[in-house]
Amino acid sequence: MRIPKHLAVIPDGNRRWAEDNGMTRDRGYHSGLNPGVEVFKLCQKHGIEELTFYGFTADNTKRPTIQRLAFTKACIDAVELLTKEDAELLVIGNTDSKMFPEELKPFTNTRKKFGKGGTKVNFLVNYDWKWDINNLNNEEKKAINPIELLKSKDISRVDLIIRWGGRRRLSGFLPLQAVYSDFFIVDDYWPDFSPDHFISALDWYNVQDITLGG
Amino acid sequence: MRIPKHLAVIPDGNRRWAEDNGMTRDRGYHSGLNPGVEVFKLCQKHGIEELTFYGFTADNTKRPTIQRLAFTKACIDAVELLTKEDAELLVIGNTDSKMFPEELKPFTNTRKKFGKGGTKVNFLVNYDWKWDINNLNNEEKKAINPIELLKSKDISRVDLIIRWGGRRRLSGFLPLQAVYSDFFIVDDYWPDFSPDHFISALDWYNVQDITLGG
Repeated sequence: MRIPKHLAVIPDGNRRWAEDNGMTRDRGYHSGLNPGVEVFKLCQKHGIEELTFYGFTADNTKRPTIQRLAFTKACIDAVELLTKEDAELLVIGNTDSKMFPEELKPFTNTRKKFGKGGTKVNFLVNYDWKWDINNLNNEEKKAINPIELLKSKDISRVDLIIRWGGRRRLSGFLPLQAVYSDFFIVDDYWPDFSPDHFISALDWYNVQDITLGG
Repeated sequence: MRIPKHLAVIPDGNRRWAEDNGMTRDRGYHSGLNPGVEVFKLCQKHGIEELTFYGFTADNTKRPTIQRLAFTKACIDAVELLTKEDAELLVIGNTDSKMFPEELKPFTNTRKKFGKGGTKVNFLVNYDWKWDINNLNNEEKKAINPIELLKSKDISRVDLIIRWGGRRRLSGFLPLQAVYSDFFIVDDYWPDFSPDHFISALDWYNVQDITLGG
């Protein structure tokens, strides 16, 4: 079976899940923590080498403050949970902004190994594709691979993106690493994660004809 | 009904269609010409202001020569057909390469109006996302909107992408203009185009919650 080397997760639908379950919209993010750990463990089990979570973006910070505080806390908690695993963590995002949580700054400069390491995990926090791309402006040298000049250069090309919550869009997710990614949509909301979603995505990926644009 | 301002078409599946119809794989592209004109006319009818066709990429030119010649000819023929319509045409792609057809060079520097003009049509020919992005390296000024520094800067942000041929990937399509695009997949091959595909895509787009990353 062909396994993606690098899987990305867009964990959407937290606010709609909260509403459907009789809560205010800010209350869904917390229920996305266990799914994140489950996905991590499934990646370990299936030999996926790199996993990227789309935490939150600069665009998302325009949401009501109560939501922003909730999703920011959820990202901090998620990274904390991953530090208890055998993982190599890197957080990427615009740290010059007040929207970037102090607690996660220690994870941003270099990838840090926890436990026995192994699976690389990237967490996008206060990510902004315009901020990421603008680094190309600052470099005097061209690169054969433009990804090398991005702020997100330590995140490699993505093979498979799984998006929960039913939307069929990238929402600004790593435009250059996603150029050839296969895209699998789960209509269920992220807090309603089930391992079946993950397995279906891998089964589907296995039968795609991967041509890298050729 | 909410209509996309800018629609992009990825007309894939020509080679599989040819095989399914008992022809060699290079023979499908020619049957993609009428669908292109039909899509153009549907855009006029529905008030879509800008339409982008994904012709071929630098990656595609690695295919067997007989296929490359066939899809190149199909793009030349398609642009020629569109010059008979009320359209404002622009061809974008790497003209420094031998892979770029001479016949289309007159369409590349500025948008040209045909008939009464109206619908803007962009045709990507020998397009290469790395070539497009590398222009950011050459500019000394930053731009608030990085799209302004691309080689493809005259192509605006895309609202809706319809991809025929069943693949769920962008295949290097305009990474920065596609950051927030909604993505509708038609499993049928492009030469099996039907107006129903187009209408289904518009109906689906109409019920999407457009947040531009918010």
